[in-house]
Amino acid sequence: MTTQEQLYQWHELAQQLRVDSIRMTTIAGSGHPTSSMSPADLMAILLAKYLRYDFDNPDHPNNDRLIFSKGHAAPLLYSMYKAAGVITDEELRSLRHFGSRLEGHPTPLLPWVDVATGSLGQGLPIGVGIALAGKYLDQLPYHTWVLLGDSETAEGSVWEAFDHAAHYTLDNLIAILDVNRLGQRGQTELGWNTQAYANRARAFGWQAMEIDGHDLTQIDQAYSAALTVNDRPTVIIARTKKGKGVTGLEDLGGWHGKALQPEDEQRAIAELGGTRQIIISVDTPEPGTPASLGNPQPLQLPTYHKGAKVATRRAYGDALVALGAAEPQVIALDAEVSNSTYAEDFAEAYPERYFEMYIAEQQMIAAAVGLQVREYKPFASTFAAFLTRGYDFVRMAAVSRANIKLVGSHAGVSIGQDGASQMALEDLAAFRAVWSSTVLYPCDANQTAQLVAQMCDRNGIVYLRTTRESTSVIYDADEDFTIGGSKIIHSSPQDQATVIAAGITVHEAMKAYDRLKKAGIIIRLIDAYSVKPIDVQTLHQAAKDTKGNLVVVEDHWLEGGLGAAVLDVFAGTKNTPIYAGSPLRLIKLAVRDMPSSGTPAELLHAAQIDADAIVKAVKSQVRQPVGV
Amino acid sequence: MTTQEQLYQWHELAQQLRVDSIRMTTIAGSGHPTSSMSPADLMAILLAKYLRYDFDNPDHPNNDRLIFSKGHAAPLLYSMYKAAGVITDEELRSLRHFGSRLEGHPTPLLPWVDVATGSLGQGLPIGVGIALAGKYLDQLPYHTWVLLGDSETAEGSVWEAFDHAAHYTLDNLIAILDVNRLGQRGQTELGWNTQAYANRARAFGWQAMEIDGHDLTQIDQAYSAALTVNDRPTVIIARTKKGKGVTGLEDLGGWHGKALQPEDEQRAIAELGGTRQIIISVDTPEPGTPASLGNPQPLQLPTYHKGAKVATRRAYGDALVALGAAEPQVIALDAEVSNSTYAEDFAEAYPERYFEMYIAEQQMIAAAVGLQVREYKPFASTFAAFLTRGYDFVRMAAVSRANIKLVGSHAGVSIGQDGASQMALEDLAAFRAVWSSTVLYPCDANQTAQLVAQMCDRNGIVYLRTTRESTSVIYDADEDFTIGGSKIIHSSPQDQATVIAAGITVHEAMKAYDRLKKAGIIIRLIDAYSVKPIDVQTLHQAAKDTKGNLVVVEDHWLEGGLGAAVLDVFAGTKNTPIYAGSPLRLIKLAVRDMPSSGTPAELLHAAQIDADAIVKAVKSQVRQPVGV
Repeated sequence: MTTQEQLYQWHELAQQLRVDSIRMTTIAGSGHPTSSMSPADLMAILLAKYLRYDFDNPDHPNNDRLIFSKGHAAPLLYSMYKAAGVITDEELRSLRHFGSRLEGHPTPLLPWVDVATGSLGQGLPIGVGIALAGKYLDQLPYHTWVLLGDSETAEGSVWEAFDHAAHYTLDNLIAILDVNRLGQRGQTELGWNTQAYANRARAFGWQAMEIDGHDLTQIDQAYSAALTVNDRPTVIIARTKKGKGVTGLEDLGGWHGKALQPEDEQRAIAELGGTRQIIISVDTPEPGTPASLGNPQPLQLPTYHKGAKVATRRAYGDALVALGAAEPQVIALDAEVSNSTYAEDFAEAYPERYFEMYIAEQQMIAAAVGLQVREYKPFASTFAAFLTRGYDFVRMAAVSRANIKLVGSHAGVSIGQDGASQMALEDLAAFRAVWSSTVLYPCDANQTAQLVAQMCDRNGIVYLRTTRESTSVIYDADEDFTIGGSKIIHSSPQDQATVIAAGITVHEAMKAYDRLKKAGIIIRLIDAYSVKPIDVQTLHQAAKDTKGNLVVVEDHWLEGGLGAAVLDVFAGTKNTPIYAGSPLRLIKLAVRDMPSSGTPAELLHAAQIDADAIVKAVKSQVRQPVGV
Repeated sequence: MTTQEQLYQWHELAQQLRVDSIRMTTIAGSGHPTSSMSPADLMAILLAKYLRYDFDNPDHPNNDRLIFSKGHAAPLLYSMYKAAGVITDEELRSLRHFGSRLEGHPTPLLPWVDVATGSLGQGLPIGVGIALAGKYLDQLPYHTWVLLGDSETAEGSVWEAFDHAAHYTLDNLIAILDVNRLGQRGQTELGWNTQAYANRARAFGWQAMEIDGHDLTQIDQAYSAALTVNDRPTVIIARTKKGKGVTGLEDLGGWHGKALQPEDEQRAIAELGGTRQIIISVDTPEPGTPASLGNPQPLQLPTYHKGAKVATRRAYGDALVALGAAEPQVIALDAEVSNSTYAEDFAEAYPERYFEMYIAEQQMIAAAVGLQVREYKPFASTFAAFLTRGYDFVRMAAVSRANIKLVGSHAGVSIGQDGASQMALEDLAAFRAVWSSTVLYPCDANQTAQLVAQMCDRNGIVYLRTTRESTSVIYDADEDFTIGGSKIIHSSPQDQATVIAAGITVHEAMKAYDRLKKAGIIIRLIDAYSVKPIDVQTLHQAAKDTKGNLVVVEDHWLEGGLGAAVLDVFAGTKNTPIYAGSPLRLIKLAVRDMPSSGTPAELLHAAQIDADAIVKAVKSQVRQPVGV
């Protein structure tokens, strides 16, 4: 094939991608045709010549990865799938219809989509995670290609990705920046100033190339050059036109996220040369096997003596090291506080499976999502308060159906002197309100160790909350703790009320138990370490047995945490019947005022979630006749 | 005074700041002395020569602003206050004690602290907000100085700030980057490579100066030069040593966040030349009055005809324009979706009071916090889903006791075709779990307009959730809606159950009401537009009147939203008595499965939160005898 023939073929393919993007959005009546048209030339050549992907085997370990960080260009992505012969024109026409795999923004309902996008600025940080896997874990030559919009470079997370990709010399990562100048509502900050983008990228340690994104020869050369660099990531900064190729759309404002009306559609398709049914053969990758990370050893969890003082964060660090030996796929990440979360022990034991993410929580969570694309089992830790920094990434990880494990230390007022900025008081609420989530909050070291082990193979977003302070080991090492369970610490036929606690407040509740007992009041005490899913049956039984007298105590704001989880147990949904036992008389003890600095004991007391407050609440219940 | 005398005075002051930082942390037994020592020379000269601040009048409109973005250097900040003569040595020694204003990280309990810091990477974006106010609103010559740590430049939010500060040519913003090379657990990514920082800053459009942060002459010259630039912000990149001046601390790892033991303290103080009691006179600013933003007009809220179809986001835009005329302090911000949130109408009406924040939600929220420091009333809007991007900023805004208004559009599955990435389904949970928050979710345009007006003077974090779809106007324009209230849409002595809805589900509940009535079942219908605070009394009464049969229906995940708010009404806390009416038989209808694309009606149905689901839930309740 001559160069001219080659260029003609690419042109035809690009025009097909544009036409199909227009056709499917017009049928859908919504979507982003013009945002799909600007990078069509870039994607045509990528698909036809550079991408190495076995569409029959999306799990091929040596497949290249392609992420549309500008997820609203989904029509272009789906058009590429049609051109690759893996979806039909008929399916294309189902875009955005209920029941279709072709959603408004890409999701892993499609086997070739690794992660959901649509919240801008996430694709590149996730790409960093995949590229870390490729270079340091898999040790395979595949590339990660990320298509970025220009508007989304305003997101700081994109610069976290630029920073980390260069730090880890990810020469297997190639970003394609579609500089079409127009955002949703007008011109972007930098317009067509591709040099400004290049300067920023270079200052962050990347190779940057500025090209005309509609010049097929320049595109070809840029990809070729990107593949030869071996000491840094590459960004191809492509000047493009939104709506390219169609008069009345090209480089015009007011066309973001708008489908064409049928009459305009026909004119546009004609101008683009009509519909085409080109099917191309995408090159498959060389065979490849991921590098071995060692042989799994039998799991030997750490054990702790009852009565010893051990912080649950300390137990997390110990358990993660043990898990590391048993599960070579376990990877640890931390955001520059590994000596506080105790992820540092794993880093020392398995340096090749630890990635320092510095103080960039969004990038840390995104990297975890990228790692699990390659089937690794990432545990990412920082102070629980700072996981809020990446909440949008957690939300989107759920849309990606990702399996990640997040660990937040230093939760609650019980951290003491550092003050409110360091205290997670909303984390249980935030993580409970994430689809597919599991929320765990252990109170003792043996319990922590067992839960960490169970996190490993748990699907979805799994969150573990740990405590800064050293607390007493209250369980024997051979007790069992399962996700979805709870532990009844005290129970008798004489129980007059039930206290439900988790984590630090279990220890306060145990003190309260002793004091109440001396005062002649016997309570049931439940350690609800599994906040989601919570142990419905045990709580129902306790409510029945103790005349509906429940006290929930938590080191968390009043809203959305353990107290809310317990209340939910007594509500009905489609799936669970309404609780129909004794009338519920539930008291929630939780943090209500903004805490300050102080000792842990002072702050637990001030927040009225300590033993004193529990004793008082129980007394108020058992003295108050039912029904008044 | 000769230059030598001047330098000696500065040196002495810097040593005092170091000594005091050590002294107070040793007494506290915790804190960050070494992080306070590296920028002590920088802060000494700032305080002694450049800062214009009236400590007797922190509200002076022309005061410079100083933000310690590296909030863990709080001991240094407090030492500066002592040197300025506004706190005593005795108070200094109360650092981190319960009841002291000197918390582990700075908070506005101190009148000279504008915003809380301690979550890294937030000070500079907030500084951008203050500088925007200074340059474009106040139009006063004060400067905003931000002390940054080097570790925190890994946060993307710092680069959002670099980007926006240059975009808005904030020559009144000066960042001081304390490059002490050492993070919490070891070397930072860039170490002492000050040139790399300078390259990045320049690529983002800043003036950057590299200096030796312990060379007093260089510091003096850098500040002087920073004040003369008039077309861009300045960053002074200062190479420093952590623990500077003390053998055994200086430039050594393992000393982050550690107080010295008393014996080491004495040696360190001796090496630094002993304790001092220097009080300096800080220059006060010139008098200054903020520019006028116009005279307040009487509020003329938009009104809508009953039965018209108007999206609540549309009403938000209309109401904000009306509020803009009535309240010259109202400022609007949006993250590049103003044509979707309808903030664009305000931008058109009051361009001088609108700031485009591009796709940088963290920066948007931080700018709002900065603007309210100067007593403006910022309304910041984007898709509700994308407000999750700034959740840590919202959390910290609460610690700052900030008064900001956040508006999230496109909430819930009812947005339709765009798919799950664009659907906020956790926002009610997230915002409820923020201290000082108000959470509003109107269902109709007249209601929206009134609530927007009330947001203006509401303190704390005020969140409004709007709906994408056009919905029927169901209330007359002269009905009253107050925060903390609710609206009983249907009520009769025959009510067998109560349905509680908000926003989009109110319209489904109204359909369900009609269908149930035809089937002979009469329900009470409550529009709980004020999700927090919620109308406790109306809900208690409804539970009593309808035998505890409650159905809550919301376009939100099952956890933490309206259903949780309603359940909380029936729990007791210290402040509210336990509900003691009929046994509660509550059904929560909420989103349980990951939604897809589809029409709004298809998605509401699939999620089982439409009229069909409500009818079914009510029937299941009224047919089930109480107590079974």
